[in-house]
Amino acid sequence: MIKELYKLDNILLEIKKQKPLVHHITNYVTANDCANIVLALGGSPVMAESIEEIEEIVSEASALLLNLGTLTEKAVQSMIIAGKKANILNIPVIMDPVGVGASEFRRKMVEKILKEVKVSVIKGNLTEIKNIYGLKEKGKGVDSANSNFSYEEKVELAKRLAIKFTCVVVVTGEIDIITDGKKIYKVKNGTPKLTQITGTGCMIGSIISTCCGVTNDYLLASTLAILIMGISGEKACNGRDGIDIGTFKVKLFDAINNFSKEDLARGRIYEG
Amino acid sequence: MIKELYKLDNILLEIKKQKPLVHHITNYVTANDCANIVLALGGSPVMAESIEEIEEIVSEASALLLNLGTLTEKAVQSMIIAGKKANILNIPVIMDPVGVGASEFRRKMVEKILKEVKVSVIKGNLTEIKNIYGLKEKGKGVDSANSNFSYEEKVELAKRLAIKFTCVVVVTGEIDIITDGKKIYKVKNGTPKLTQITGTGCMIGSIISTCCGVTNDYLLASTLAILIMGISGEKACNGRDGIDIGTFKVKLFDAINNFSKEDLARGRIYEG
Amino acid sequence: MIKELYKLDNILLEIKKQKPLVHHITNYVTANDCANIVLALGGSPVMAESIEEIEEIVSEASALLLNLGTLTEKAVQSMIIAGKKANILNIPVIMDPVGVGASEFRRKMVEKILKEVKVSVIKGNLTEIKNIYGLKEKGKGVDSANSNFSYEEKVELAKRLAIKFTCVVVVTGEIDIITDGKKIYKVKNGTPKLTQITGTGCMIGSIISTCCGVTNDYLLASTLAILIMGISGEKACNGRDGIDIGTFKVKLFDAINNFSKEDLARGRIYEG
Repeated sequence: MIKELYKLDNILLEIKKQKPLVHHITNYVTANDCANIVLALGGSPVMAESIEEIEEIVSEASALLLNLGTLTEKAVQSMIIAGKKANILNIPVIMDPVGVGASEFRRKMVEKILKEVKVSVIKGNLTEIKNIYGLKEKGKGVDSANSNFSYEEKVELAKRLAIKFTCVVVVTGEIDIITDGKKIYKVKNGTPKLTQITGTGCMIGSIISTCCGVTNDYLLASTLAILIMGISGEKACNGRDGIDIGTFKVKLFDAINNFSKEDLARGRIYEG
Repeated sequence: MIKELYKLDNILLEIKKQKPLVHHITNYVTANDCANIVLALGGSPVMAESIEEIEEIVSEASALLLNLGTLTEKAVQSMIIAGKKANILNIPVIMDPVGVGASEFRRKMVEKILKEVKVSVIKGNLTEIKNIYGLKEKGKGVDSANSNFSYEEKVELAKRLAIKFTCVVVVTGEIDIITDGKKIYKVKNGTPKLTQITGTGCMIGSIISTCCGVTNDYLLASTLAILIMGISGEKACNGRDGIDIGTFKVKLFDAINNFSKEDLARGRIYEG
Repeated sequence: MIKELYKLDNILLEIKKQKPLVHHITNYVTANDCANIVLALGGSPVMAESIEEIEEIVSEASALLLNLGTLTEKAVQSMIIAGKKANILNIPVIMDPVGVGASEFRRKMVEKILKEVKVSVIKGNLTEIKNIYGLKEKGKGVDSANSNFSYEEKVELAKRLAIKFTCVVVVTGEIDIITDGKKIYKVKNGTPKLTQITGTGCMIGSIISTCCGVTNDYLLASTLAILIMGISGEKACNGRDGIDIGTFKVKLFDAINNFSKEDLARGRIYEG
């Protein structure tokens, strides 16, 4: 366990107290789950992407999440306008580059956004993180591809990307890596079940955003988010590896909804 | 309890008998839940918004629901065309001005729709209702804001709005208010849990539309809808305030699916 | 039971082994359920519809599903581009003409797609299948209308459509019909509950696509898909006709997730 544990508690409490408004510009496949996850933690979600209102909506928000799931050129325009406004207002911007390895279009759009918008957190699986860094690796659809990087190589990549964009980088996988380029946390919680329902990746983005909405310590906020999803996944399984996905999804929402500081004791989190 | 109880029974029966087709022009976040809620009651949902087909689709419908959740300029065009057609065909139009307080764009779009389309029911939380009436109050995202109106002021506002647009107005909240400008019903059912999952507001719009699809008494239809959601929410909790949202959502759908006239006895509904 | 049973087993195994990527161009109402169904079987879903990336995405896919649920002109463009690319690459294209009877726009769009794209499977309810064949019958929304065709007439229609487009045709209903124009299978599994939640039709499209992603025998693949949905529906009910839709939907996902060759023994499938 890490010594900053008490700070994680505090973020959990602040979410309940402040009810951060999390502005999502996101995909239609997992939007409902993402909205419910924010509510489950105590935050308040809003999904809006019309250019005509995007600046006004984000101005009220505590965090802005840019999720590229079902990307359109129009949504990218909105992302950039909202992102710039968020930058001016010091609202953290979280980027979830879903499936960026799956098409040249996505690569270009992510590049464009990252050129115009200062992001606080980039969250992706290894293929996505590689592609953002410029290492082209073809993803299969929007899900994680197996990648032949060693753990050390992953950490090195994450650190470099974090330094390149002066942001926190989260690489999800069997071992999750969270770094700001200097400090590194690794988290070993979770269950393969989390990869067997759609949207858990997107939901992690929503949880990171909710946590970042109440603190300036985006490294800890992102680490907490990873712990919440991993530990809640374990609780939802409750030792039953054979749990089926209908029931698992219901129990995952339950677990996230009743997540408390006691649950943090299950965290398998390490520094370095 | 109110003396019109037997009429509420009748609406429930007619839904099962007539299977009203409810045409939704709505947001992508809660569309799935809204479709399932209509089915749960015995109606039939259709979501369609392409301008090329909107008149033909609405012509077959028993009710038209305009939900502004993830509003676009294009959707507003479709809403107006569909709304005008519904007006000609005497199909009730239900307006759910989601988050109208959250942006000037939404305020303008709602104004535009209300200028061109005669609506039968407007349903919103207090912030939304205030904004439609012209009292600008900044909402936080799309969820209800706390508002410092007394109960009497709320009723007065609802009545005035109902008179202004010659329609039924539903103001949701701890006490729900339903009025046509003359008669007033208030409903005290429900549970805070209903505000902790996304989409219950949208679903109320779908239930109102389903009920309005089988009767001309939109005041009673809207009142029944409010009772269905409130009582089903209570049944889903089953006394367990600590129920988590994954399980709660499943049980809410169950409760609405098996809602019967016996459940109406749990209604805490008052006149005046 | 049919003698090809062992082949059905094999398709189930191949899905787990190959994890076929199923590219959906689909509607926002049921997209989440469709993604989860593909995952439940062992496949991998991707939803993408931007013209800029559609060719690149489909090139990696094992099957392409065109679902017309919430149709737009823009989506049709993407469907045609993706469909043509799939044809070149020998990737099966599955067409689910949701609500094609509900508007002239849909009829024209389906016609346009079928003129430009060679499809491997067309799946619809009787009203939809009639409309594709050119027999105009007004559907009520996107759900199945009652139709006064005898069983023999249905089979005849399905065969003719299959011959017309040299593809497999699946007509869903109380008795499901699957034919390639020569061979005919009929399946008598299922439960009325499956028509009481939204998206089961769309999900069948996703299951067909997943199965077609690992075999060239699209007739057997489609038959297996119909068996999976019907038998899983029965398992989800578990003899309780009164099961409510919240619980039913959870159990349906569970049943599809743990579907195994042993379950195939419950198949009420007949030739001819």
